[in-house]
Amino acid sequence: MASGMTTKNGQPFDRAALEQLMKRQLFYTPAFEQYGGVSGLYDFGPPGSALTDAIITIWKDHFVLEEDMLLVDCPMLTPYEVLKTSGHVDKFADWMCKDPKTGEIFRADHLVEEVLESRLKGDKEARGQKVEETEEDPKKKKKKVKNIAAIKLDDAVVQEYEEILAKIDNYNGEELGLLMKKYDIRNPANNGELLPPVAFNLMFQTSIGPSSNAPGFLRPETAQGQFLNFDKLLRFNLQSMPFASASIGKSFRNEISPRAGLLRVREFTMAEIEHFVDPEGGKKHHRFEEVKDIELELLNREVQLSGKTNVETTKVGKAVETGLVDNETLGYFLARIQQFLLRIGIDKKKIRFRQHMANEMAHYAADCWDAELLTSYGWVECVGCADRSAYDLTVHMKKTGSPLCVRENREVPLKIEEWQVDVNKKKLGPQFKKDAKAVESAIEALSQELREKLSLDLEKEGKVVIDAPGVGEGTAELSKDLITIEKRTRVENVREYTPNVIEPSFGIGRIVYALCEHSYWSREGDEARGVLSFLPPVAPTKVLIVPLSGRPEFKPLVRKLNAKLRAIRISSRVDDSSSTIGKRYSRNDELGTPLGITVDFQSVKDDTFTLRDRDTTKQVRASLDEICGAISNMVNGTETWADVAGRLPAFEGQEVD
Amino acid sequence: MASGMTTKNGQPFDRAALEQLMKRQLFYTPAFEQYGGVSGLYDFGPPGSALTDAIITIWKDHFVLEEDMLLVDCPMLTPYEVLKTSGHVDKFADWMCKDPKTGEIFRADHLVEEVLESRLKGDKEARGQKVEETEEDPKKKKKKVKNIAAIKLDDAVVQEYEEILAKIDNYNGEELGLLMKKYDIRNPANNGELLPPVAFNLMFQTSIGPSSNAPGFLRPETAQGQFLNFDKLLRFNLQSMPFASASIGKSFRNEISPRAGLLRVREFTMAEIEHFVDPEGGKKHHRFEEVKDIELELLNREVQLSGKTNVETTKVGKAVETGLVDNETLGYFLARIQQFLLRIGIDKKKIRFRQHMANEMAHYAADCWDAELLTSYGWVECVGCADRSAYDLTVHMKKTGSPLCVRENREVPLKIEEWQVDVNKKKLGPQFKKDAKAVESAIEALSQELREKLSLDLEKEGKVVIDAPGVGEGTAELSKDLITIEKRTRVENVREYTPNVIEPSFGIGRIVYALCEHSYWSREGDEARGVLSFLPPVAPTKVLIVPLSGRPEFKPLVRKLNAKLRAIRISSRVDDSSSTIGKRYSRNDELGTPLGITVDFQSVKDDTFTLRDRDTTKQVRASLDEICGAISNMVNGTETWADVAGRLPAFEGQEVD
Repeated sequence: MASGMTTKNGQPFDRAALEQLMKRQLFYTPAFEQYGGVSGLYDFGPPGSALTDAIITIWKDHFVLEEDMLLVDCPMLTPYEVLKTSGHVDKFADWMCKDPKTGEIFRADHLVEEVLESRLKGDKEARGQKVEETEEDPKKKKKKVKNIAAIKLDDAVVQEYEEILAKIDNYNGEELGLLMKKYDIRNPANNGELLPPVAFNLMFQTSIGPSSNAPGFLRPETAQGQFLNFDKLLRFNLQSMPFASASIGKSFRNEISPRAGLLRVREFTMAEIEHFVDPEGGKKHHRFEEVKDIELELLNREVQLSGKTNVETTKVGKAVETGLVDNETLGYFLARIQQFLLRIGIDKKKIRFRQHMANEMAHYAADCWDAELLTSYGWVECVGCADRSAYDLTVHMKKTGSPLCVRENREVPLKIEEWQVDVNKKKLGPQFKKDAKAVESAIEALSQELREKLSLDLEKEGKVVIDAPGVGEGTAELSKDLITIEKRTRVENVREYTPNVIEPSFGIGRIVYALCEHSYWSREGDEARGVLSFLPPVAPTKVLIVPLSGRPEFKPLVRKLNAKLRAIRISSRVDDSSSTIGKRYSRNDELGTPLGITVDFQSVKDDTFTLRDRDTTKQVRASLDEICGAISNMVNGTETWADVAGRLPAFEGQEVD
Repeated sequence: MASGMTTKNGQPFDRAALEQLMKRQLFYTPAFEQYGGVSGLYDFGPPGSALTDAIITIWKDHFVLEEDMLLVDCPMLTPYEVLKTSGHVDKFADWMCKDPKTGEIFRADHLVEEVLESRLKGDKEARGQKVEETEEDPKKKKKKVKNIAAIKLDDAVVQEYEEILAKIDNYNGEELGLLMKKYDIRNPANNGELLPPVAFNLMFQTSIGPSSNAPGFLRPETAQGQFLNFDKLLRFNLQSMPFASASIGKSFRNEISPRAGLLRVREFTMAEIEHFVDPEGGKKHHRFEEVKDIELELLNREVQLSGKTNVETTKVGKAVETGLVDNETLGYFLARIQQFLLRIGIDKKKIRFRQHMANEMAHYAADCWDAELLTSYGWVECVGCADRSAYDLTVHMKKTGSPLCVRENREVPLKIEEWQVDVNKKKLGPQFKKDAKAVESAIEALSQELREKLSLDLEKEGKVVIDAPGVGEGTAELSKDLITIEKRTRVENVREYTPNVIEPSFGIGRIVYALCEHSYWSREGDEARGVLSFLPPVAPTKVLIVPLSGRPEFKPLVRKLNAKLRAIRISSRVDDSSSTIGKRYSRNDELGTPLGITVDFQSVKDDTFTLRDRDTTKQVRASLDEICGAISNMVNGTETWADVAGRLPAFEGQEVD
């Protein structure tokens, strides 16, 4: 559990300072601000969109290119029937409580959480304990509960509260209502009593076409489009299983009252993978061997249900072996998710994988883990990874009759011994007339056990009586001349099965925000100088070009550098403003620009330039080609600054930090 | 005008064959097909999304990186007020006509177009002329009008029809209604009379938040988010003008009855640039010199209004000089748009720029040109490029009071000689009491001319009478002791202005479709073997790897090639199926894969491979590193196949075409 977030150089983390920086530098800004804004909607400015783009590019490289996934792009507008079948129309909802007097609306689980947390805080104060910003706030949202009364609670009550908070995601609406009654949870603003929780569907509704009789929704996830294309994708993949599809795009969630900045928004970028796998044979993965020794921090469901949040460091191989993680494919993706998060610069100490509890998980899911990242808001779900079994393909196939399944020739044909019933239709028809069809169905429905028994009866009695719903009294008498029952061998050459789906699902916006928190620190002795230490492959702009001054002889060199970098598709930014070099670098520290090139008098003389590393503020000096080569390597991730500093001559002429 | 589209090798273009190919290879497929589909919504499968992604990547490189544009990403959900101010709530509509008996709905302009075109076709048949598929169908949609009666028309009528069709985009609802009356245009299916055209707003509506009293729309374009961020972007750009923002994302249009495949859809990817420029000084562009000699095919508005469609080949510099294209910045972007289209592989002979006619253009626009691409549906608008004047920033600034403008220090302060009025408020207040404010406003509103005249009157008469709406009889008498009028010099150090906006706006889906048409042909002598000749930087998959057979000694080489290409981030696809090499290449011709590597017995011996060019089916043979180097160069656009074939040894051992 977090106790006082710190930055990478050990300073206390200051969320307000980071948020100001991000707004000042236009990473993001509330959307439609001039029109009063809409909560949960944000604009991403140049650094914010470039950062998001860079992370998506790495995601594609890490998953899609690396594993030959099939990328698809499906509409956001989705007809009602599709989301009715998937279960979203009925179940994609949060519980909301209304204050009947003021009309104010609260999300029930968040309210319970906030009130109990504030009471625990008040208890701590009353006991004279230090209250840290993030302690006891594993999923803290921006507080509605502002003035915390320092009231001591019974030890037993403290324990009850802590246990409830540990499993807050496990309650349904009725249970939340009971908790609110039991612990007298009211509108924190006016102490008014609230109505019991009711379900609020989180999809945005619209209607498609001019006659407004075709209701539709904005998709809440990208998954359904992938499921509906399963059979086409299987064909595209030359009928070869297993395979994965992937989709990157916006999804929508009509949050009841979005807060917590970029963590809870109404429109967001998702990247989702649907890995389709044969449910037989233990859901093995052919590259599991490569990841089995990777260690993950696992918080399993039993620990949470016991009211605790202790994680255990476990190798993926071990976790699958012991059955904690359901199968190899699921385990493989947990490891790959962690690799991805580390690759973009997420702090390893701030990653954990939390298993879903029974009520939290959909009834059909075999297992589900969330990759949670530690932020100043507590542990935040950023990637979900669920084994959804055959649920999705099954419901769409049932509803539409489309073959969302695999038909495979068996290498060895399957021989099945079974009791078969032959019907003499010529006689059965005239005897049962309009009921003949129903009788035939009743015969077909007979179980193997019953068939075996009936064959003996038929032998002995010359006739049998079977249940036949809808026929006369509900039974039908069948004589020997109507049916024959025999044990025979049937040969099955084709195997038909519905694949299971392992679904890693990434909330890109949340990952971007967590990365900003993990990358933020400020220069020693100058707390106002914030730095975002993005890795070169991730940084919005890679290079800042600064001429020492506005002298005209620097201009052609600046242009040459700019053009040269553009030619190798590296984004650079020229700052030839009149500010001091220190100020100009300072601004680019805030933008997370990892590298800086200074054009000075020496450059004019011999065409060499200094290259500066943002984090260390150390510099090297080399020719144009050498500098550009080093930059290219660092941006592509094949060299680090340490490598470059090791092979190019250091430069210590100017003070530019 | 098109007369029978042909492919690049001169075959007649077969749209049905291309569409079948694209669906078969999963470039796209109707969305939600199992649920009956929704017209105007499509899924893009792996080759379709990769192609789109590649085009977007080049777009970013060509515009954003090349010109340091500020990329932003704003929500699709947009509150009502924003789109009310922009004019979309009132004006973003098409004209629709209803058949009152059947309830069928038609888009009025399309219906007029289709009926007149079909009558012209019938006339041609009656005259015994050859009717070609695309002739006379400049904007043909999938026909509702199926059985064309061969009826001869008067020569005068033929001319009238042709003139109407040439300016079909220039009619409003009332005019379309009159045309329908005059030419007796009815429901083609049942000859039923239709109701007059009414406006149908094309935005999808929804409501934001749980209380459903916050109406919103899905954005019809990405532009509004960019306009609303103007002041923040200007600050981000260190107050430096001109600059451009850019946005890539989905927009929505609730089409009345979408047809014409990928050309008219309800959800689509747009890439839009908003270039903000000082309206003073002729809207020069500092890089205009680089493009001024580029030739464009221009179809100007006068030609269209005269009922013709002749284009004129004109250098951009000349077009701006003569005033045909309004200004340098607009001309610069027209040239850059053409460069982009050529760079992705659009056929130069199938590009024209059509100027908007007066009624077609928004009232505030200074000039507007569409880049149209010739397809089998006729000339299709794929990129719009408008000078929107200061309209957008002005309306939002007026509505919200936000400073969406530029404030610049003047290098030379501006001295303005003007007549100023001083008011003695101590006396004016008591004299006019509650009307004092209104009188002051009336004084402020006095024009310079009037002030000059009044100063003389005041001198002469000792008093003046001015218009003062809302005060007594609507006038106010002011004596010498209340006001003084003098000519003085005012010095203005700051200049405030609202920038004008040049807006190049790209319909990515339409460009993708047109590119597919322009790239499609089939192998001589085997019309069933379609080929999509995408350039290597654009192609969905760059390399096909085919082992000669399934022999085990080929497998490690295939893996090595695959890994090597992945390491340099080039997408490849292994086809080790049992089909013949010819069949495997044939499938990849359809996917537009430009390059193929064959692994054969020689490869096992000496680690050399053959590299095959899709278009010529020629091959070279070289080492792994040489092959990968050549591929990398072709994908990055620094070498062509001709270059590679010129420097690596040809291979003629196998027949793999």
